[in-house]
Amino acid sequence: MMDAIEALLTRKSVRSFTDKPLTEEQIEQLLKVMVAAPSGGNRQPWRIIVVQNQQVKDELAKAALDQHFIATAPVIFAVCRAPEESAARYRDLGRNLYSFQDTAAMTENLLVAAHAMGLGGCWVGAFKDKEVSQILECPPDVYPVALIPIGFPAKVKGKPQRRPMKEVVRFIR
Amino acid sequence: MMDAIEALLTRKSVRSFTDKPLTEEQIEQLLKVMVAAPSGGNRQPWRIIVVQNQQVKDELAKAALDQHFIATAPVIFAVCRAPEESAARYRDLGRNLYSFQDTAAMTENLLVAAHAMGLGGCWVGAFKDKEVSQILECPPDVYPVALIPIGFPAKVKGKPQRRPMKEVVRFIR
Repeated sequence: MMDAIEALLTRKSVRSFTDKPLTEEQIEQLLKVMVAAPSGGNRQPWRIIVVQNQQVKDELAKAALDQHFIATAPVIFAVCRAPEESAARYRDLGRNLYSFQDTAAMTENLLVAAHAMGLGGCWVGAFKDKEVSQILECPPDVYPVALIPIGFPAKVKGKPQRRPMKEVVRFIR
Repeated sequence: MMDAIEALLTRKSVRSFTDKPLTEEQIEQLLKVMVAAPSGGNRQPWRIIVVQNQQVKDELAKAALDQHFIATAPVIFAVCRAPEESAARYRDLGRNLYSFQDTAAMTENLLVAAHAMGLGGCWVGAFKDKEVSQILECPPDVYPVALIPIGFPAKVKGKPQRRPMKEVVRFIR
């Protein structure tokens, strides 16, 4: 158990994992938290592909510009957007904005939950879209937007510093 | 104190608020959690405008397609993306993807933290972009992507149901 505020404040990227696999219960818990994310009009324009196959993990790492650490995690969660499911109600706003935001909220939920459960992960957003779609056998209108390797942390680095608040926050009182 | 997993699972949209204002400490805590969100390359391509002025809140509600409940919250957090700050390193990928994802992760952090603190809020993504930019006096290259009214919940509705897991999750073992 970890306090929610503490989990949000102390979550950080983990890129080095032990060999210990996740349990089925852990994967199920993470999936529940992921789909608990909000989405515009509750359209849930998302797909999750849980990759545990080593060969497929290796292929994903290669398609992610050779970020090999990805393939060393026991599980990679591939988050995809299904923009037409949001566009059906919200047209371009759903297609071009909400489907990105909703899947990002889902990804953040995954990372915070993993951290709270003693796991760790990293949001990987740099990859060759078409290659990843092919590897994951995504149907038409389903597009990968994030690859998130999750596992037990081996090495943990510090959390990178944030800019001073006054640079990014303004008050209208 | 609320357990992180519980907070992630039970967060839900709140659209009805009491008159009770947030304390300065609560606002500060929420801001800290917001900027603790991950961002591509730690670029932090975001701005937060904390709106407590009633006239400005009313103008925002009007620009948000007359969603008047927004103006009844003691605070509206306006989240903006600063795409060029991500594009400086990642070009179009930063501009068109990461700046949306990073600000969405920040927004989800805000909503989860608010819920854990006994507050509530709602992710408002439908508004007239240019009007909101004018109201908030956004500089060039800073674009509002979410308005999040936050306050003490008055009425709380149930959390809308999620689609069955098998509709959205697939395993590659």
